[in-house]
Amino acid sequence: MNQFINAKETLVTDAIDGLLETSGGALTRLRGYPHIKVVCRGDWDKSKVALISGGGSGHEPAHAGFVGAGMLTAAVCGEVFASPSVDAVLASILAVTGKMGCLLVVKNYTGDRLNYGLAAERARAFGLKVSMVVVDDDIALPHLPQRRGVAGTLFVHKIAGALAEGGADLDAVTGAAKAAIKNMASIGTSLDTCTVPGSVKEDRVTPGMAELGLGIHGEAGVEQVVFEGAKEAMEQVLEKLSFRTGEGSYVAILNNLGSTTPLEMSVLAHELVNSKWAKNISHIIGPAPMMTSLDMHGFSVSVLQLTERNMAHLELPVALPAWPGMNKITPARLQPLPDGLLPIKPIPSSNPKTRVFLDQCCDLLIAAENDLNVLDAKSGDGDTGSTLVGAARAMKGSLDRLPLADPTQLFRAIGDELGQTMGGSSGVLLAIFFGAAGDACASGKPIPKALLAALERISQVGGAVKGDRTMIDALEPALQALPDGIARAATQAREGATQTAFMGRAKAGRASYVPEENLIGHNDPGAEAVARLFEYLAKSI
Amino acid sequence: MNQFINAKETLVTDAIDGLLETSGGALTRLRGYPHIKVVCRGDWDKSKVALISGGGSGHEPAHAGFVGAGMLTAAVCGEVFASPSVDAVLASILAVTGKMGCLLVVKNYTGDRLNYGLAAERARAFGLKVSMVVVDDDIALPHLPQRRGVAGTLFVHKIAGALAEGGADLDAVTGAAKAAIKNMASIGTSLDTCTVPGSVKEDRVTPGMAELGLGIHGEAGVEQVVFEGAKEAMEQVLEKLSFRTGEGSYVAILNNLGSTTPLEMSVLAHELVNSKWAKNISHIIGPAPMMTSLDMHGFSVSVLQLTERNMAHLELPVALPAWPGMNKITPARLQPLPDGLLPIKPIPSSNPKTRVFLDQCCDLLIAAENDLNVLDAKSGDGDTGSTLVGAARAMKGSLDRLPLADPTQLFRAIGDELGQTMGGSSGVLLAIFFGAAGDACASGKPIPKALLAALERISQVGGAVKGDRTMIDALEPALQALPDGIARAATQAREGATQTAFMGRAKAGRASYVPEENLIGHNDPGAEAVARLFEYLAKSI
Repeated sequence: MNQFINAKETLVTDAIDGLLETSGGALTRLRGYPHIKVVCRGDWDKSKVALISGGGSGHEPAHAGFVGAGMLTAAVCGEVFASPSVDAVLASILAVTGKMGCLLVVKNYTGDRLNYGLAAERARAFGLKVSMVVVDDDIALPHLPQRRGVAGTLFVHKIAGALAEGGADLDAVTGAAKAAIKNMASIGTSLDTCTVPGSVKEDRVTPGMAELGLGIHGEAGVEQVVFEGAKEAMEQVLEKLSFRTGEGSYVAILNNLGSTTPLEMSVLAHELVNSKWAKNISHIIGPAPMMTSLDMHGFSVSVLQLTERNMAHLELPVALPAWPGMNKITPARLQPLPDGLLPIKPIPSSNPKTRVFLDQCCDLLIAAENDLNVLDAKSGDGDTGSTLVGAARAMKGSLDRLPLADPTQLFRAIGDELGQTMGGSSGVLLAIFFGAAGDACASGKPIPKALLAALERISQVGGAVKGDRTMIDALEPALQALPDGIARAATQAREGATQTAFMGRAKAGRASYVPEENLIGHNDPGAEAVARLFEYLAKSI
Repeated sequence: MNQFINAKETLVTDAIDGLLETSGGALTRLRGYPHIKVVCRGDWDKSKVALISGGGSGHEPAHAGFVGAGMLTAAVCGEVFASPSVDAVLASILAVTGKMGCLLVVKNYTGDRLNYGLAAERARAFGLKVSMVVVDDDIALPHLPQRRGVAGTLFVHKIAGALAEGGADLDAVTGAAKAAIKNMASIGTSLDTCTVPGSVKEDRVTPGMAELGLGIHGEAGVEQVVFEGAKEAMEQVLEKLSFRTGEGSYVAILNNLGSTTPLEMSVLAHELVNSKWAKNISHIIGPAPMMTSLDMHGFSVSVLQLTERNMAHLELPVALPAWPGMNKITPARLQPLPDGLLPIKPIPSSNPKTRVFLDQCCDLLIAAENDLNVLDAKSGDGDTGSTLVGAARAMKGSLDRLPLADPTQLFRAIGDELGQTMGGSSGVLLAIFFGAAGDACASGKPIPKALLAALERISQVGGAVKGDRTMIDALEPALQALPDGIARAATQAREGATQTAFMGRAKAGRASYVPEENLIGHNDPGAEAVARLFEYLAKSI
């Protein structure tokens, strides 16, 4: 078994029960398992025309997913791809039909027509008013006298459902259904067949080809065509439908036949909207899976001429998750990019002391390159020293541009500089650190508190805390000790860095993938860099 | 290429445009293609807390599908499975954030955390209030310090979205998001990996096995487990989550990871509802595709502890087709089968003339068995004669039970009898014919008109009309001539039957699959049977 089912025999009944149990009580079913599988509206009072559809299973959400106010009153479910029995259809009619009568919406397959037809006849013998329409929207086989019923059926469900819900009589509902059927056409295309439960999947479609004009029961397509991409596939389908969409205004159902991803369906929607064959298609329903063929990797397009009346019926909202609603096709609405994407260039200012300080910090890091690389080679890819040196060199080169006299602006400018020049996760983290320090200064915090707030921010963003074997193990104790003087901060930083050599397991960053024995005995290179910086500051300030 | 895309490079932008063009104007995007791919609410006025989420694409409908009132204000879309850039995130923040501030909902991946974190920092430098939460609901890797963010993210979108839409301030929205994250857990299982556009699908999962604890980017699952069926797969998942669902009341998201069919998802829903591990799961969202992994054939379950507050937020309806709504789990509601499924047994009555008439009709058909079989062998499987004989014999045996004195009841009874004994399409069609004739009699029509009405009914159900090379070619002219007397009707029937021999192509029934040359020169066996019956009646009445 390669599907999430229990057994082929219980597939449909299990699925119907799952649907009911998660419907919030909106749906009921007849007590007729396993032969009679009929899903009904839970709130039905027989006061209006009932609308019944159904057929073989494997086309979900059709049909049970469309049972609800404004669409179907009941759905009769056969086994996968098999027509429901006469008894099942009859049971559905008898269960939901009141004085207003009922309309059967049948897809054009011999089994369905006959079984629904006979059930209707039997129901009429009870004095019930029953009418029946046969949907035959598939244009794949133009010479076949009996065209198949496919996704266009949803137009009928929606239009007839809206009318029935509005209180129309059976003749009006039937008439509208017939008018819709007369004015619709559908065709589908697929890159693969479907997996019928309990059967091995047929490997029919040649790689690089698509099947155009397929059925929804795994029937082979009318032709295999070269598959060139989404645009060409949509053009092929729309061209076939173009005899229908020559004049007037049309609505299209863009139907996912099963396993086409939402990304692909949206690409196809984009191609539909922009095709030369779709000039008269003004509205769209979907893209969405509505009349599927199990897990078929394909799509279908159904078109229906819009009239003032059927437009109103199609637009009427229904509270069914399976019905995606009808939207007017519009150009994509664009809005301009906001200002502020480029970092604000700070106004340079001078502060000789700060300049020397920064310059010397950079020199220190440049001198430590090899030591830090060696440490990093124990736990990572051996480039911590080089990465820091790259950033330090760039920083030295930018000293003329920096707002050295304004701590708030300086922190932010250093952050921007490091974010752009350093790259990688550490670059982003340091950019966040200095940016956050600038924010904290701007809100009036003294520098030691501002740095602590910045530390908290990178801890939140990066997900590391003290003890995770990162630079935080040196930085946090140092910053906490800073109010007691730089010497104390340096001692704390060194102690923190030393402790990282005893941490067997890194909990964040790349070292978290390195085995314990490789880490023990070596300081974390980030923590070591922090310790060296503070030690240098303690000596030189 | 084996997907409905145009090129890997334009996949995401094409898809976003398709989404926008079919959204009825509800969505806009920033003018920043190809690097900045940000989808925004079209009706946004910055008067409330903005809610931004996003990440790599390939998880649709997450995240752009959840942009709308009551959920996200904007979604930032990266390339497939790749984090969006800092600039893209920053653009989204700057575009939608007003005085109330904005909350970033980030899934726990390093790239996302860093890029969102830095973008937030930059936005704060503009004086914007920005907070950020990191969703880490995946429990597949319990020992990994950094748990991944998966479908539980939807809980955050919905809860924070409802609060923000209701006018709550940034602290309240952020607090609720954090509380939800703290109280949720997710895990998934799959029967196959996903197809990354532009890459060959990895054939990793051994047939007969499932991957438990997979990621949503094609990462391998934590373990391969034996796949025994839907029930066991759901049990495995729920057992892993059971440490979370021990006490209190929980809501579950049942998420389709991509190409699992709706039938399978409903079966899984049924198994979830009825699992011993799910006793405390009182509500469900889905089954639906919400946080997919392209076309992965799998599902995930996310659980969240329900509180009075978050329940209200989760229940609040939103007008987004991608959000399936939250329902209370209920037992399947059953209703009794209606009366009337068994055909009403007619009260026998006698009419010697009718009895003789029927008996002789049956004898005629029995005598014609071989002739009709020979004719049918030209166009079908050579059993028309035998089929009719079977029915005729059964009819002869039922004469004692028939309501011979009442034409309405008699027609109906003959219909029921033929429907049960004759089998096949012809049995159903004749059952409909006689049933409809009974209905027409009941409504006061004289017998010839009743039979014409019945003919119209089988023509509608069976889809055949005069000229299609069926029994209708003899029956219709005969019935139309019946008011002029039985002799005229017989002549017409014979003429109609004879004409079928000139019909090269059958348009209905099994003969429609037979080549022209095999048909020409032979009467249709159904039409021939009708002609013989009428000729017999003309002689004997």
